[in-house]
Amino acid sequence: MTGNSINVGLLGFGTVGSGTYDVLTRNAEEIARKVGVPLVVRKVAVRDKTRARAVPIDPALITDNPDEIIDDPKIDIVCELIGGVEPARKYVLAALENGKHVVTANKEMIAKAGHDLMLFAEAHDLDFLFEGSVCGGIPIIQPLKQALAGNRIHEIVGIVNGTTNYILTKMARDGSAFSDVLAEAQALGYAEPDPTNDVMGYDAQFKIAILASIAFNSRVDISDVNVEGIIRLSPRDFEMASVLGYVIKLIGIGRETAQGLRVRVHPALLPRSHALANVNDVYNAVYVRGDAVGDVMFYGRGAGADPTGSAVVGDLIEICRNMRSGGAGRLGCTCFHQKTMLPMRSLRARYYVRVVAFDRPKVLASVANVFGDFDVSIETVEQRTHPGGEAEIVLLTHETVEQNFLSALEILGRLPVIVGVENWIRIEE
Amino acid sequence: MTGNSINVGLLGFGTVGSGTYDVLTRNAEEIARKVGVPLVVRKVAVRDKTRARAVPIDPALITDNPDEIIDDPKIDIVCELIGGVEPARKYVLAALENGKHVVTANKEMIAKAGHDLMLFAEAHDLDFLFEGSVCGGIPIIQPLKQALAGNRIHEIVGIVNGTTNYILTKMARDGSAFSDVLAEAQALGYAEPDPTNDVMGYDAQFKIAILASIAFNSRVDISDVNVEGIIRLSPRDFEMASVLGYVIKLIGIGRETAQGLRVRVHPALLPRSHALANVNDVYNAVYVRGDAVGDVMFYGRGAGADPTGSAVVGDLIEICRNMRSGGAGRLGCTCFHQKTMLPMRSLRARYYVRVVAFDRPKVLASVANVFGDFDVSIETVEQRTHPGGEAEIVLLTHETVEQNFLSALEILGRLPVIVGVENWIRIEE
Repeated sequence: MTGNSINVGLLGFGTVGSGTYDVLTRNAEEIARKVGVPLVVRKVAVRDKTRARAVPIDPALITDNPDEIIDDPKIDIVCELIGGVEPARKYVLAALENGKHVVTANKEMIAKAGHDLMLFAEAHDLDFLFEGSVCGGIPIIQPLKQALAGNRIHEIVGIVNGTTNYILTKMARDGSAFSDVLAEAQALGYAEPDPTNDVMGYDAQFKIAILASIAFNSRVDISDVNVEGIIRLSPRDFEMASVLGYVIKLIGIGRETAQGLRVRVHPALLPRSHALANVNDVYNAVYVRGDAVGDVMFYGRGAGADPTGSAVVGDLIEICRNMRSGGAGRLGCTCFHQKTMLPMRSLRARYYVRVVAFDRPKVLASVANVFGDFDVSIETVEQRTHPGGEAEIVLLTHETVEQNFLSALEILGRLPVIVGVENWIRIEE
Repeated sequence: MTGNSINVGLLGFGTVGSGTYDVLTRNAEEIARKVGVPLVVRKVAVRDKTRARAVPIDPALITDNPDEIIDDPKIDIVCELIGGVEPARKYVLAALENGKHVVTANKEMIAKAGHDLMLFAEAHDLDFLFEGSVCGGIPIIQPLKQALAGNRIHEIVGIVNGTTNYILTKMARDGSAFSDVLAEAQALGYAEPDPTNDVMGYDAQFKIAILASIAFNSRVDISDVNVEGIIRLSPRDFEMASVLGYVIKLIGIGRETAQGLRVRVHPALLPRSHALANVNDVYNAVYVRGDAVGDVMFYGRGAGADPTGSAVVGDLIEICRNMRSGGAGRLGCTCFHQKTMLPMRSLRARYYVRVVAFDRPKVLASVANVFGDFDVSIETVEQRTHPGGEAEIVLLTHETVEQNFLSALEILGRLPVIVGVENWIRIEE
């Protein structure tokens, strides 16, 4: 604290940076009441000083040299809102080395390089908070670390990527193809010009790695998270899922069993009664199951300038209160276990599979036989004959082991009666 | 802290007390890792030492003298889990006076006498936390005070009473009468033998007073909260609501406008698309609208030994971390405003009204005329003729001022063509 204010420097003034600045500015008086002293943005570092800004800001606050923030002895807290691993990580480390508390909304940096930064902050009694890195403004990291800390968490399942949820919602409602909806989402600004991180599931992978690490008190590396995106979903899958009473969502899921921990991102069929089945458009939600609390769910907007700004400002206020009460660094890394990470092949799940076969006698029997050979039993079958004389068979299996299911699928694809295995999707209850 | 542990005393060993003890005991090792030292229950005060306990506990820990906890210098944190205002308040004050931190799950005490206790704790750098007082295990007080602290909250709406939500869910599903479902809920243990606090809305009144005080940073006295219970709802209202696309829920709601703050508990028609419309059975949910975060919702089990125990243990861990980092008392009372409380008569809302009239010509015109005289315009009309020759008319109004609506209703009840005004219910969007 410098005199009668707590001073903040912002690294980055894009969507999240300008949102954070806007929230801090417009609610300055209320925030000062909550903290006890004013929270003042002293400097904002940008890449290009000449660029137009999304929210009005005094040009005297703008610099293109991040060191002017990192090395300013009058700045108490640095907000890293640049994104990406480098140079963000380097700046954060330098700020911590200079004794500054840090807030970030950078999921990729936290997922890939957060652990060392957390340990450094902890060793130096500094706060390093990152609520905004997962699900924008929805409070989820703080509840997991604090209000739910008395629980053993068994499961955490979330719709944690707004872009893909928007796309899947549109595909389900309109029966449109993935590529058409993606183009529309890009035009509306809901998807990036390069949508790879979203549609391939990488963004969700970063987020579920962070959430699972906190929920299970065990560091989950992103390489431990199996990831599949949404690009192979077709309008037909949505149609058949709906006929069978399911919706299709991209979920991040971490579940602990006696054998260990399995964390994954993939599209899944959810029954219409599932808590996440009605989370639509750009909304996010995270469902947590704990031994004491039972089921809890957190729902809201997972991205955007103001919602993510809300999370960053919440973290800033948290740090200010710690500084004022003398409790800085009170919440460090909580990954005190190193739990066994389980591979996908041993997953037990139910599966949806859609195959196209030549319309011949006994084709269903051959399909069922192949599954039977691998101990996969069939729960539901929908068969329809296409005008071209081909039969489409949609099966839901009973619970089975993924390796068995995939082995059966491989054999199935080679049967002469099968035109092709069109798609398969895991089912979550 | 006494040596290498933090010591806790429990006042009360009923549902919440035994749940708290059970969570603390079965997750002791994990909790010790999170806190840094073991959290030890040193003593439990009960009214009757001879009574059987819901969870196994060493009889040596049990006392029937609360002073043995309040005055024990080795006890760092006192959990008040007795309920009711007195003697709970007296014990909490004595514990604070003895320099102990306090956790409580006592909504009535917080709503009626919490303010002074909070100010006392704050003045003495003591923690006084009460997450378990509202919605059991759902993290809501902490997120409002911390993660969402950067927001100006405009609205908070919740289904905060599990008993009435169970009753209303059953009435909607089965078309049963209130008294039958209440009897069934009592048999199942979902409703108390004396259900007054739940069905009259008083329990919800305590909870929304607490939530609104925190959300709007302005102390809301329970006498400022208009309260109406669920006893006047009939199966016919559920049927007609459903026909019109609505569900009926008991909601607690606080909303701020330029004129001030209005906080109320009453049954309401919610459109089926409302975030709270699908919160059923004993589940609770709180929906918050903030200027930065937009819409967020928190959902889970609002009561029970384990869920409320989860909240109490979360608060205990929070205090332990404060004690260990030197930040005790970091979060005091946040009611730094005293906002104008608005009366119900100036509420602007839409209304559902169901009247029975004699089946004569122009009866609908007379009804519409009365509303028109008070500037209440009708949006939707459903009229049905009963076998007995009476007509049932259900109206939804456009938005109007409550005083006008009620004045119209009074006149309406006196019209010779009207048999009776059967019910009216506010509509929330």
